[in-house]
Amino acid sequence: MSAYFTEIPPIAYEGNRSTNPLAFKWYDKDRLVLGKRMEEHLRFAVCYWHSFCWNGFDPFGYDGTFERPWQKMADPMAAARAKADAAFEFFARLGAPYYCFHDRDVAPEGTTPRESVNHLHEMVDVLAAKQQATGMKLLWGTANLFSHRRFMSGAATNPDPEIFALAALQVKEAMDATLKLGGENYVLWGGREGYETLLNTRMGQELDQMGRFLNMVVDYKHKIGFKGTILIEPKPREPTKHQYDFDTATVYGFLCRYGLDKEIKVNIEANHATLSGHSFEHEIATALDLGIFGSIDMNRGDMQCGWDTDQFPNNIPETALALYLILKGGGFTTGGLNFDAKVRRQSIDPEDLFHGHIGGMDVSARALLIAEKMLLDDQLDQMVDQRYAGWATPFGQDILSGKMGLDAVAAHVVARNTDTRPVSGRQERLENLVNNYI
Amino acid sequence: MSAYFTEIPPIAYEGNRSTNPLAFKWYDKDRLVLGKRMEEHLRFAVCYWHSFCWNGFDPFGYDGTFERPWQKMADPMAAARAKADAAFEFFARLGAPYYCFHDRDVAPEGTTPRESVNHLHEMVDVLAAKQQATGMKLLWGTANLFSHRRFMSGAATNPDPEIFALAALQVKEAMDATLKLGGENYVLWGGREGYETLLNTRMGQELDQMGRFLNMVVDYKHKIGFKGTILIEPKPREPTKHQYDFDTATVYGFLCRYGLDKEIKVNIEANHATLSGHSFEHEIATALDLGIFGSIDMNRGDMQCGWDTDQFPNNIPETALALYLILKGGGFTTGGLNFDAKVRRQSIDPEDLFHGHIGGMDVSARALLIAEKMLLDDQLDQMVDQRYAGWATPFGQDILSGKMGLDAVAAHVVARNTDTRPVSGRQERLENLVNNYI
Amino acid sequence: MSAYFTEIPPIAYEGNRSTNPLAFKWYDKDRLVLGKRMEEHLRFAVCYWHSFCWNGFDPFGYDGTFERPWQKMADPMAAARAKADAAFEFFARLGAPYYCFHDRDVAPEGTTPRESVNHLHEMVDVLAAKQQATGMKLLWGTANLFSHRRFMSGAATNPDPEIFALAALQVKEAMDATLKLGGENYVLWGGREGYETLLNTRMGQELDQMGRFLNMVVDYKHKIGFKGTILIEPKPREPTKHQYDFDTATVYGFLCRYGLDKEIKVNIEANHATLSGHSFEHEIATALDLGIFGSIDMNRGDMQCGWDTDQFPNNIPETALALYLILKGGGFTTGGLNFDAKVRRQSIDPEDLFHGHIGGMDVSARALLIAEKMLLDDQLDQMVDQRYAGWATPFGQDILSGKMGLDAVAAHVVARNTDTRPVSGRQERLENLVNNYI
Amino acid sequence: MSAYFTEIPPIAYEGNRSTNPLAFKWYDKDRLVLGKRMEEHLRFAVCYWHSFCWNGFDPFGYDGTFERPWQKMADPMAAARAKADAAFEFFARLGAPYYCFHDRDVAPEGTTPRESVNHLHEMVDVLAAKQQATGMKLLWGTANLFSHRRFMSGAATNPDPEIFALAALQVKEAMDATLKLGGENYVLWGGREGYETLLNTRMGQELDQMGRFLNMVVDYKHKIGFKGTILIEPKPREPTKHQYDFDTATVYGFLCRYGLDKEIKVNIEANHATLSGHSFEHEIATALDLGIFGSIDMNRGDMQCGWDTDQFPNNIPETALALYLILKGGGFTTGGLNFDAKVRRQSIDPEDLFHGHIGGMDVSARALLIAEKMLLDDQLDQMVDQRYAGWATPFGQDILSGKMGLDAVAAHVVARNTDTRPVSGRQERLENLVNNYI
Repeated sequence: MSAYFTEIPPIAYEGNRSTNPLAFKWYDKDRLVLGKRMEEHLRFAVCYWHSFCWNGFDPFGYDGTFERPWQKMADPMAAARAKADAAFEFFARLGAPYYCFHDRDVAPEGTTPRESVNHLHEMVDVLAAKQQATGMKLLWGTANLFSHRRFMSGAATNPDPEIFALAALQVKEAMDATLKLGGENYVLWGGREGYETLLNTRMGQELDQMGRFLNMVVDYKHKIGFKGTILIEPKPREPTKHQYDFDTATVYGFLCRYGLDKEIKVNIEANHATLSGHSFEHEIATALDLGIFGSIDMNRGDMQCGWDTDQFPNNIPETALALYLILKGGGFTTGGLNFDAKVRRQSIDPEDLFHGHIGGMDVSARALLIAEKMLLDDQLDQMVDQRYAGWATPFGQDILSGKMGLDAVAAHVVARNTDTRPVSGRQERLENLVNNYI
Repeated sequence: MSAYFTEIPPIAYEGNRSTNPLAFKWYDKDRLVLGKRMEEHLRFAVCYWHSFCWNGFDPFGYDGTFERPWQKMADPMAAARAKADAAFEFFARLGAPYYCFHDRDVAPEGTTPRESVNHLHEMVDVLAAKQQATGMKLLWGTANLFSHRRFMSGAATNPDPEIFALAALQVKEAMDATLKLGGENYVLWGGREGYETLLNTRMGQELDQMGRFLNMVVDYKHKIGFKGTILIEPKPREPTKHQYDFDTATVYGFLCRYGLDKEIKVNIEANHATLSGHSFEHEIATALDLGIFGSIDMNRGDMQCGWDTDQFPNNIPETALALYLILKGGGFTTGGLNFDAKVRRQSIDPEDLFHGHIGGMDVSARALLIAEKMLLDDQLDQMVDQRYAGWATPFGQDILSGKMGLDAVAAHVVARNTDTRPVSGRQERLENLVNNYI
Repeated sequence: MSAYFTEIPPIAYEGNRSTNPLAFKWYDKDRLVLGKRMEEHLRFAVCYWHSFCWNGFDPFGYDGTFERPWQKMADPMAAARAKADAAFEFFARLGAPYYCFHDRDVAPEGTTPRESVNHLHEMVDVLAAKQQATGMKLLWGTANLFSHRRFMSGAATNPDPEIFALAALQVKEAMDATLKLGGENYVLWGGREGYETLLNTRMGQELDQMGRFLNMVVDYKHKIGFKGTILIEPKPREPTKHQYDFDTATVYGFLCRYGLDKEIKVNIEANHATLSGHSFEHEIATALDLGIFGSIDMNRGDMQCGWDTDQFPNNIPETALALYLILKGGGFTTGGLNFDAKVRRQSIDPEDLFHGHIGGMDVSARALLIAEKMLLDDQLDQMVDQRYAGWATPFGQDILSGKMGLDAVAAHVVARNTDTRPVSGRQERLENLVNNYI
Repeated sequence: MSAYFTEIPPIAYEGNRSTNPLAFKWYDKDRLVLGKRMEEHLRFAVCYWHSFCWNGFDPFGYDGTFERPWQKMADPMAAARAKADAAFEFFARLGAPYYCFHDRDVAPEGTTPRESVNHLHEMVDVLAAKQQATGMKLLWGTANLFSHRRFMSGAATNPDPEIFALAALQVKEAMDATLKLGGENYVLWGGREGYETLLNTRMGQELDQMGRFLNMVVDYKHKIGFKGTILIEPKPREPTKHQYDFDTATVYGFLCRYGLDKEIKVNIEANHATLSGHSFEHEIATALDLGIFGSIDMNRGDMQCGWDTDQFPNNIPETALALYLILKGGGFTTGGLNFDAKVRRQSIDPEDLFHGHIGGMDVSARALLIAEKMLLDDQLDQMVDQRYAGWATPFGQDILSGKMGLDAVAAHVVARNTDTRPVSGRQERLENLVNNYI
């Protein structure tokens, strides 16, 4: 077993007066919130890629800064095993119940497709054993269809069907792996499904390819009896100039076009939301209202930076609003709260990985408690109900039900012949009310 | 008749060696381009609101700068008539074949709903007479559902059904007016259909209201026999923090959800595109590929400013790319090119209105000639065809047709057991090729 | 006296268990924080323009929504008096100690320069009497050099020196008024000091004009014996495409260039900071480090909107970080915390003005208490001291003092001939630490 | 010698009717423009890093796509030599007169500081010989102080003076190399000189460190007799969240603060300009007006992407405006036009490097011809002169010269007692005029 984190004791809940930086101040997994344990509400997952694969590189620092031991090993499979050791050592000490991975995070690309498949099979066995040993569960699996140069022009949307086929193999295998490991969802993030320039792109055809690919995924899910949820993760751009899964509303239209709106939901990331010109809570609310809310990638962006900084969340009020909407929408079913977050390039100590996750988990736990108050108090809901009360009247219902057409409604106004005064939206009062719960 | 523009002679085509600032250098309306006259291709429209209603005010300069005579008149109907005189005087001197208006641009709000209707009826007669006299045509009409305080919380998406009803009356009347004036489209821009804060908003209900409203509009269109196209104009925000018609892809999903995707198309504005995080050409291409391309509002934004600057287009290569896509997609049918553009707040001379439009028309004409070269030369298309050639093979077709499922495609790769090398996207070569046409 | 707010009782501190929306939960003005009363620390000011002049209009809703009685009065001086009545009624009920105004907020433009001056003189007497009666104080005065059409191309930077002169008169009079009313600072915000297009602009000459103008202001300050601080308020754009006072660092360079860096400081607005691509705390830290920190305009922007939304602050952690920096830098001297914030266009009830200010004051008070904890605990400072410890060594001092030149330092490295390992920046740990104080 | 580009013939000027994609259509190096040869005006440089060091990697594709032979070689010095062979082979075939490099681009980091120095010395000899053989010249040299992990928290602004010292060694050596190779400028780009979070940063101290570092650089320049220009390259962020050299105006203030404004100028990059919220022409105009214009990094960003895309310029009108300003400001002295531009990650063929540079050079050449017309025709300048004519009157001069103070100017207005009407800014007319030159 790895001993990369030996200096770090298991992280325990010590309450908010603790001054121990390596303890939870708010995340008390067994505390009951609205009748469920915190752990069941939050369904935290640690992601494999940022904490165990990324070496701290960035576009201006190719070589990275972290120097994890397994990143220096010559034999890729030995490195994969060492990395898994360290990852599960970390999971065990942290105490989040779930993890998530891409195929290539856990098993290296081979020199041929078959060798890649074999690598994955071998590592899935390793992971299965480790899950057994530790009780860790898999929130979701996914396939990395964006890092290898063959996918530089897309995977499902590649101009070459043979590259589409290579992507299909990876997804089939990643779905099989997810099923075998008891994963509760399967995620597709199309980082290269988009275009750099319209000059070389047939967008309509590429959308059809992507629609076909996702239908193949859904068919295969049913064929193998995978009961989890298929999730698309929207992102507007980066690495690609334009990505087809721009935001939740765009994904919804795509799902409708290709007959998938009952089969696929979304995995919403905070930082992807802000990059697309939306707030995180907007994306959550949109998914809930369109009936495609699935899971979240919890992190935060930097509002001054135009790229995905994938930082751990640290703003309590913003996180509370997101969790309030999720709870109000019924909470997670198969989904959960995956920290698609990475410590900063300068946070090079093993200990820093714990600080990132502890902070994220405490902020989320605290936000959950605030959201509980917002729901229990119910003042917010009452004020909103009152605002829309007119739509519950016969007149409102006649419009919505289709009983009155445009000319009938117009005739009603002409007959009445008076204006209607607007009423205050009371935004400041509502904002103050929310701050009272913090 | 107005004599506001008496110092300006009718604008004539003088060719690109002319140094007359009040002449067209490139817009030669009868010049044949791909078998059609320039005028028929471009279908230029002047908008009423920016040039004749706006007084030059901005958020930090309430009182405006233009001081048009009709903006100082005490009697609103007299002012409306004087404004119409000036507008048609302008149209006649400029030589664009179309115009567009909102109901409240041409006729003032009355003190009661009925009076407002009467004002509009009266002014529609004035406009009809002026169309007759000048040969001007109406590209589209629309209703202003965003300026009056009653619409501060939305029109179709208002929490109060009585305000929804007031909006319905306006739209019914504006549709009637459009039909009467021979308008070729009817546009809906939902500037207040959105939210300021989710705290006071039931987004799902508001979307249902908007879906209902648009179904009422479509039903009424058929009822009155209006043969034009119903168009939604997407915009992500401003004045509202979030607008439901965020971009073309969002509108498409909305149309699918409410059964309207065969009935409604989009009117795409350049500046709205860039505000939503897209290029103008992206929005055009998206609409074409989704089958909902209708018309364009031609203008430009300022990439350093985060709001709608509605400037006249002046970048030739960017305009050429937009027109190339439109021509390739078959050109306009009922749609056209409306200049939703305004002269700057400092451009206070009547003459400046001409410079703005002349510049926009010349840039568009020049862009059309470039687009013609791009299409005739066909090198772009050939290079793109070659890029996607693999999808025309039996293997590609078997995937797209649904003959092969995920596991069959995966099995194909395992059997083949080789990687596939990517090929260059040749973006720089294509960009150079495009510049050669300029 | 006005009776616009009669339904609102004076706002009292009731503690954080109060459920009264019209009470302070955290702002307890006499509570001691680091040895000073909250009121003395925070030095809250209410601005005149947003709450009493703005009628709720926006670029798509010219007529506004608020319908304050004084905004409908025909006689401008009577309206000015009614507005002052309402403003002081509001101040008295709210309990913030300061206010701020532009000349044109309190007194209407006349038909000639002299009449405008007379209007201001008359209203200054009214304000003086009201200050006397209520104990309200003036945090700062300023002149509106951006709303009138004559300033459409700038005031100090106008191409016409006669318009520069009209601006000079307004500033002279506004400075006199500020002095007379005991104002503690005088602010210049150059909303039109910039350009729309470089094509018609001599930027170098305009900067010289602005440098000259500010030197005239400083000279006049000394001449009349005004002891307050002259402040420039940076903003990157809006209304103008580019504004010369883009951000704090830009203003600093400008002050150096025109010999004013010892005479003028900055008034930093949160929303202007974010529009310029900076965080609010960045701008504060920059001003403190450059020695030009003066005062703040407290508000918040909407990170999804590219314009100045001027909302009341409501994010506790962000506000705490701003106040922490200010306290660490010694707190305010002549400056204060002006709410350059407005209720939303839909917040049309008089009561909403109170909710906005109560929320802003409570958030600030709470942030002050958090900042106090951050300072008292001192862990943050210790960790930072430790990080830079090397610069206190003789080697570090020899570099900074100029004792060692580039080649000497290089020779030191070659002689030593070893690399130096970086140490973790510990960002996540520090962020968690800050959250512990909340 | 390398034979990486053997299939590409030397690029020749063939005129704008050529259909050869591997020929110049507009760049005719000996063509006279305003009395100088095109080559002398444009002073094109190819950068080493993007074309010969970058392997096509991005944040989501670690391994790159290009697979240049030298990027696969095991021995770093052999790779450096092979890379230099390929680079000069490319230079020779392309025909741009200059190149630019970072120390680590041309010579690999060694295992000790001394070894790194030796590597650089060895490769400088190689480069010197190649310059001799080909006639290529060095526009500027620079040191890479941002890629190595030791610089993760800055170089000159590092919390550890030993890392500052390692940076000093690199800069000293890079300056020596630049002098030896006849370089005409020396550039400093502070990619890590900034902060990720204020929580761990003493900004004031870091600025002092940077001020000291630059003074050491300037002293050393004079000591070794380097006659070229020292240039700072502003960039607002990326890789660092905030960079101290945010934009030209910020750099100017910094130079003033540390007594360097007569010693150091700026190297302005188009994409850095747009990332900082400015247009490229704004940054050029600012530098010219502040007297610190030095050189440019010509490229373009993608206005939809919030990061540095470093694409080759392809927009003719935008490039023309930049060159117009530079010509009007006297043209380049020691500076030049460096293509800090890279082919897209998907442009994997050696040929694509030529298309990128040919396109960039042709666009610049064409822009130069347009700028020539703008200058020769002189209408733009005349219209601007006329706009500012008032400042040449005695009244304007009395203000600017300091003869009249604030109260004297105010008294002038009161005596005159009339308003002054603004005049049109004529932006649309000027924009049309510019388009006429294209």
